[in-house]
Amino acid sequence: MLLSQIQGPQDLKKLSQEELEQLVVELRDEIISVTANTGGHLASSLGAVELIVALHRVFDSPRDRILFDVGHQAYAHKLLTGRRELFHTIRQRGGLSGFTKVSESEHDAITVGHASTSLANALGMAIARDLQGEDYKIVAVIGDGALTGGMALAALNKIGEMGKDMLIILNDNRMSISPNVGALAGYFKTLQVQKWVQDAEKVGKGLLERISPRLYELADRAKEATKMILHQENPFYAWNLRYVGPVDGHDLSGLIYMLERLKDLSGPTLLHVVTKKGKGLAAAEEDPTNWHGASPFNPKAPKAKKGGYTWSKAFGDAVVELAGREEKLVVITPAMREGSGLSEYARAYPDRFLDVGIAEDVAVTSAAGMALAGLKPVVAIYSTFLQRAVDQVIHDVAIEKLNVVFAIDRAGLVGGDGPTHHGVFDLAFLRTVPNLQIAAPKDALELRAMLAAALRQGGPVALRWPRGAVEPAPEGAWPECSWGRWEVLKEGSQVYILAFGKTLGYALEAAAGDPRVGVVNARFLKPLDLDTLAALGRNYKLITVEDHQKAGGFGSAVLEALEQLGLRSEVKVLGLPDRFTDQGKPDELHAEAGINAAGIRKALALFGITSGFPAPRAG
Amino acid sequence: MLLSQIQGPQDLKKLSQEELEQLVVELRDEIISVTANTGGHLASSLGAVELIVALHRVFDSPRDRILFDVGHQAYAHKLLTGRRELFHTIRQRGGLSGFTKVSESEHDAITVGHASTSLANALGMAIARDLQGEDYKIVAVIGDGALTGGMALAALNKIGEMGKDMLIILNDNRMSISPNVGALAGYFKTLQVQKWVQDAEKVGKGLLERISPRLYELADRAKEATKMILHQENPFYAWNLRYVGPVDGHDLSGLIYMLERLKDLSGPTLLHVVTKKGKGLAAAEEDPTNWHGASPFNPKAPKAKKGGYTWSKAFGDAVVELAGREEKLVVITPAMREGSGLSEYARAYPDRFLDVGIAEDVAVTSAAGMALAGLKPVVAIYSTFLQRAVDQVIHDVAIEKLNVVFAIDRAGLVGGDGPTHHGVFDLAFLRTVPNLQIAAPKDALELRAMLAAALRQGGPVALRWPRGAVEPAPEGAWPECSWGRWEVLKEGSQVYILAFGKTLGYALEAAAGDPRVGVVNARFLKPLDLDTLAALGRNYKLITVEDHQKAGGFGSAVLEALEQLGLRSEVKVLGLPDRFTDQGKPDELHAEAGINAAGIRKALALFGITSGFPAPRAG
Repeated sequence: MLLSQIQGPQDLKKLSQEELEQLVVELRDEIISVTANTGGHLASSLGAVELIVALHRVFDSPRDRILFDVGHQAYAHKLLTGRRELFHTIRQRGGLSGFTKVSESEHDAITVGHASTSLANALGMAIARDLQGEDYKIVAVIGDGALTGGMALAALNKIGEMGKDMLIILNDNRMSISPNVGALAGYFKTLQVQKWVQDAEKVGKGLLERISPRLYELADRAKEATKMILHQENPFYAWNLRYVGPVDGHDLSGLIYMLERLKDLSGPTLLHVVTKKGKGLAAAEEDPTNWHGASPFNPKAPKAKKGGYTWSKAFGDAVVELAGREEKLVVITPAMREGSGLSEYARAYPDRFLDVGIAEDVAVTSAAGMALAGLKPVVAIYSTFLQRAVDQVIHDVAIEKLNVVFAIDRAGLVGGDGPTHHGVFDLAFLRTVPNLQIAAPKDALELRAMLAAALRQGGPVALRWPRGAVEPAPEGAWPECSWGRWEVLKEGSQVYILAFGKTLGYALEAAAGDPRVGVVNARFLKPLDLDTLAALGRNYKLITVEDHQKAGGFGSAVLEALEQLGLRSEVKVLGLPDRFTDQGKPDELHAEAGINAAGIRKALALFGITSGFPAPRAG
Repeated sequence: MLLSQIQGPQDLKKLSQEELEQLVVELRDEIISVTANTGGHLASSLGAVELIVALHRVFDSPRDRILFDVGHQAYAHKLLTGRRELFHTIRQRGGLSGFTKVSESEHDAITVGHASTSLANALGMAIARDLQGEDYKIVAVIGDGALTGGMALAALNKIGEMGKDMLIILNDNRMSISPNVGALAGYFKTLQVQKWVQDAEKVGKGLLERISPRLYELADRAKEATKMILHQENPFYAWNLRYVGPVDGHDLSGLIYMLERLKDLSGPTLLHVVTKKGKGLAAAEEDPTNWHGASPFNPKAPKAKKGGYTWSKAFGDAVVELAGREEKLVVITPAMREGSGLSEYARAYPDRFLDVGIAEDVAVTSAAGMALAGLKPVVAIYSTFLQRAVDQVIHDVAIEKLNVVFAIDRAGLVGGDGPTHHGVFDLAFLRTVPNLQIAAPKDALELRAMLAAALRQGGPVALRWPRGAVEPAPEGAWPECSWGRWEVLKEGSQVYILAFGKTLGYALEAAAGDPRVGVVNARFLKPLDLDTLAALGRNYKLITVEDHQKAGGFGSAVLEALEQLGLRSEVKVLGLPDRFTDQGKPDELHAEAGINAAGIRKALALFGITSGFPAPRAG
């Protein structure tokens, strides 16, 4: 096995072309066999194997900086940069990150997980490099989906203006997580079908010769192998970028040949590489969407797992039913159709479904425009991605109290995706915004009740639920929701646990059978149920618990409300500590942070509630 | 006077061409004479007068929706839509907003103040219009600076893909607030010099005829008057947009002629209009940067006011001095060179100054790239604009504890710009972020101490100061800063006021001469000075006061810290109430919110501290 002899990128320089081809095969096998066990971003990583081998063959990491946008396509990069033996730990607690991470390896140039950040990072690095008189190379690998994100386009704009030396590789697989959208995507497709390749003989040469004699020479030499073409009539030209491509991203020798020749060019160059997501695993090639974030599978008979019923599906089912009776309802997603449970909705109501691509800000503000024009938009978004549209929530939606519902999925700790993806800051940045109402349902039925009530009652509303399993609600069931009222689920004589969202289950578990401990489904954070809080705060000790940072979250809101009520109740706030939480199973991570049943029991013990119960277990 | 007879846009339809030209003159006079009294966004509004008259002549507001990006160029629009008599109140407390505002007029299609939002709004509106079977027109007016913001580009991408009917007017004055930057700006310039206009005869006709016979016919007819041209070789073509222009934005009859002919075209059309910022006021035409947000001036002898010494200048002076001894220091601004006090720095250190244009996300993430490559970047940004880069602070900077300093200007209530611009949410969205340190200096000298200490000590640090005047610090003075320690400025026997940032002055005023009341410069929010807080919280009553929303701010952090310390101190939290604050003088607004000396005295009275002091005044 060749792969086991690769300690770092320098070892690739010694291999023959034949050995490199073999290495590609071994890398694919390793990626498939490990993700079959652990799950992970299989399809993207399979698509980028040749590209990554070629990059490490030609460039000199860590001296040269290779930046992977999103960083989930970089499994081959991890395997080639000294992390092969730890690779089986990927996305597990204490193991390798599923993305590139600066603190994990000197070969990881950026810490990443969200899309479209690589170009701004590359811009900053190029400025720093030149200012400090250094001369390393900077290569940013960015997908076609990520490149159409506004932040990437704005960075491109500045890169083009400054003319900084760097190579941008457009890894074009015609997919972000959902099939890619947007006019530029259509444009890339045009490039892919090689409209201009066909004209290259006629048009290209003259242009090339005029613009860059060096490239002209290359084009001439490389023509057969790479169908290289540089052409003015493409959007990158307007951005002052040298455009080269499209080239076949699975032709290893062609890629190496091309990179060798591009690496010393000055100024920004964009190399357009066409790859196939899932390459090498037939099932993933055929259905890259469902293989984007793969669950563990049988490598002999690979089949994308359907999985059980989830909060995402509960939302998707609810919104399909609601749309049937509420014709003003429209659903918007920033490139997360499947992840947000909207496949069926999008099929049923294609005219009332908008996928704006990887552009969370556009998702929120186009919802504002819809609300201004009389619709009732629901923005389906992950908590971690709503971080990218805070200003739009404030400036475009909340100031005018527009009727926009934010359906926030993946709130709280999400698991294997780790610190870049945990949805643990949303309550802090949302609850400071006037006019915005915030609630979390305890189950799928309450999700339906809240969604219907939110649309009925108007104004901006944020509803928040976690990643993972939930029991389905009965079809057609649309219970009433008493807006702004908490729900006392269990009476207690000494302490009340106020639980927001997912942690309610832990609270019930911790309090089970103990008449001293009450439990409240504190489902509304804003407006907070001051009546219930006052009644409880006057007479009982309180514990708050939430799946969010302690700083600025639900417990913090309770402390503020008590101050406002003039109550000095005894309160213990349970939430995530003031550090980033690495990846791991949510249960493990909750235990570690003390926001599970054991953690609540510890807090109860501080209030003297222990007897008759098993001693709290460590961790 | 014609203007006084205009009650609404319908009155424009009756005027002759000559009268319209006269109206333009009257509008300019009115804008100049009112802003001479009140100050305001003079230069942009002067540049857009003909365009606005033409729009209201041709389109039918409020049925047709005219969206002004940023909304500060729309003074003529306000004057033509029933707000002439209130126009003298613009930007004053209780008066007209300085931007377009939905709740102010049915003619204001969007509420706005931040750049680059109009296209996503227009997209949402177009979808809503078509879904509901309506047929009004949508016109978005966007500047060349705002159009290069990522959010606008991403929206354009989706608009092009969907082919929605709308007219996008690129109001190209070659300026955002600072001279515009970016490759696209260079491209617009190329368009302006009419490279293609010269070729129109040769190239344009054939293309036009092929692509749109209707436009071809128009082009042919309009050629002399408008130099209209439609051409494939421009970036908008890649976005599926019909491009028309450039046309002279001060040729009223030409504009009307063109708008008449474009208004019924289907699909998205971009009309490129070239205007001159400050048009009609020679001083503003010559120096549009200093006339962007004008202070009151003498209309007979207009001169941009220099103004007194400000926090922005204190920062600018500090950073010029620091850069001399700290060669790794680099300063980044998202299009706010003058506003952030950086003119001198940019002159002195052009290689260590980066203006990324209106792209706050790129500003923060390019700083991350610089920090990864060994520099010490300082991101100079207004509090309200940092809302646009929350994810980048978390994802690109804080996770890896990068050495990035955020120099946050305009924190707290800013005055005439009102609710879109008040910097009153930053503490909430920042303090929930692990690894981030947050402080506020009490004066220019402490700003220097904190800035130097932040660079020395590393990790991400947010420093925050208000808009407005401050005493200059002595040149060359660089005192030490005891990181994370509060400063007891006045001892007290019963109550301590913990003041964060600007409100410290109010606290000292409220406590002056009263031995019962102590005052703390609680300058570090994170890390919070737990030792000092514990010592005070055990023995005294506490009042916190801040220029920020109460929800999630400094007081909230104090409540959390007391919970963590297990202290049930008596605390009163003073901050902004849970609603958006309209424009007005900061002093007036602070009084209204009770976060001035009188408000603090009221809180002291609740703690029984009244005697010997004047009764708190109302409001």
